[in-house]
Amino acid sequence: MVDVVVDGKPIQDTKQKSVQRWALTLAYEGSAFHGWQKQPNDLYTIQMVLENALTQIANEPIHVVVAGRTDAGVHATGQIVHFDTHAKRSAEAWLRGVNTAMDKNIRILRAQPVATDFHARFDAFGRRYRYMLESSRVRMPQLRGKVGWTHYALDMVLMREAAQLIVGEHDFSSFRSSDCQAKSPVKTLYDLQIVGNTQLMALDFHGSAFVHNMVRNIVGALVYVGAGKISVADFAQLLAVKSRRFAPPTFMPDGLYLTGVDYPEKWQVATAPLPQWLWPHLI
Amino acid sequence: MVDVVVDGKPIQDTKQKSVQRWALTLAYEGSAFHGWQKQPNDLYTIQMVLENALTQIANEPIHVVVAGRTDAGVHATGQIVHFDTHAKRSAEAWLRGVNTAMDKNIRILRAQPVATDFHARFDAFGRRYRYMLESSRVRMPQLRGKVGWTHYALDMVLMREAAQLIVGEHDFSSFRSSDCQAKSPVKTLYDLQIVGNTQLMALDFHGSAFVHNMVRNIVGALVYVGAGKISVADFAQLLAVKSRRFAPPTFMPDGLYLTGVDYPEKWQVATAPLPQWLWPHLI
Repeated sequence: MVDVVVDGKPIQDTKQKSVQRWALTLAYEGSAFHGWQKQPNDLYTIQMVLENALTQIANEPIHVVVAGRTDAGVHATGQIVHFDTHAKRSAEAWLRGVNTAMDKNIRILRAQPVATDFHARFDAFGRRYRYMLESSRVRMPQLRGKVGWTHYALDMVLMREAAQLIVGEHDFSSFRSSDCQAKSPVKTLYDLQIVGNTQLMALDFHGSAFVHNMVRNIVGALVYVGAGKISVADFAQLLAVKSRRFAPPTFMPDGLYLTGVDYPEKWQVATAPLPQWLWPHLI
Repeated sequence: MVDVVVDGKPIQDTKQKSVQRWALTLAYEGSAFHGWQKQPNDLYTIQMVLENALTQIANEPIHVVVAGRTDAGVHATGQIVHFDTHAKRSAEAWLRGVNTAMDKNIRILRAQPVATDFHARFDAFGRRYRYMLESSRVRMPQLRGKVGWTHYALDMVLMREAAQLIVGEHDFSSFRSSDCQAKSPVKTLYDLQIVGNTQLMALDFHGSAFVHNMVRNIVGALVYVGAGKISVADFAQLLAVKSRRFAPPTFMPDGLYLTGVDYPEKWQVATAPLPQWLWPHLI
């Protein structure tokens, strides 16, 4: 319902149909798109494909609000968006209808009606990313686009030691892209676990929010630590200088997955479980 | 060395340089190619890309003999080929040089000199295939091209029961493509194991040789068994009729990997290990 205020008292505008807000859990293959965000030049982006399909099924223009934008080549298994519509459809109808209307490289995993004051971005208090990393002499053809790769042999003990130094609240300017639009470089990294083994590992990031390229920049620096190109002390120093000037390069997007978003329980929008196929032996 | 026979006695043709035979272990992403075999119309095939790169590095025309041809969309992690060359190069030089000259969707994992009477196809007494299968309501975008998919819920107990019926020596005409060029439909399936769980499973085939589309046809029939569309008794009957007339359709190539080829020990061409990244929790 849309409230119209007349003489200080809200009245219902009966010409308006009621609006329902929906939350969607999405998975997508990042290599098929030019990133999340809609572009003026009709570049093939995830937001464009999703909004076009929603607009078609809703039969009215639909705009989505996303929990965390992702760059070109970055994947998701638990992205969250919300949108408003006058269209009356069941969760099942949204899921089936929109999936059928979309490129198979994006899939709605879950559609659920939510309160109209739920906000996919502002209500999120945590984001989870997994970075998959292969270290081998020859890069496996089947893992291109899915798993990051380095030819360096990696020392996981050193990498874990360095990783623990950046858990907590920090100014992440050293790991922040120059075109980052976040108001502050200060974020809280709740946890950073490195699991698996030296040939195939996963780096699991859980944080309040992330500055632009933060995960890929941290992975780039941790790979340098693991390869012995910089020491754990250098890594600590890197964080302390609050500048990209001395930082190792941004790591490739291939292995990066947005795996989940956390909301207060009252919204009943549960964080997507880490999918079984995403190398569950590494969990 | 090339032997020339004069008056019944072999003599060496000293104008010829000596020939070395090499065996290569290959991995490739099948979705990037129109199958293994070189085509007259310059279709983009694995054999063409590999032979072009070998020819460039050897600086003479190179022809390869493959252990097991694969169809469009079918992957390999342990394919074996051999070729002969007058070029003198180290194993390391072949591996690095040819990999650099090739599409990144094919990679030589190992190059080794072998006796000139080793034959990649005729000496192979076993082939190993893994079929990866996802059963879910919504197909995961990231698994497209890599893992076969069905929306049917699958009963693995029934599938395993049916699988055991075709282990051994059988006439596999019921699982043989009409364009199969094998001399006989009789092959020996040494083993067929189904591991994992109902959402994500692997079907591991180990056999002497396979008629065309045999793995994908068996997977198609086992999915029907798992989905309850045919019974285990029907499956037994299907094998017995030795005809494709009643067989369920050929399953998609996406989940099929040639993972290894077996040779007598004397050749010292070891079967490639199942790669760790190929869902090792399912091993």
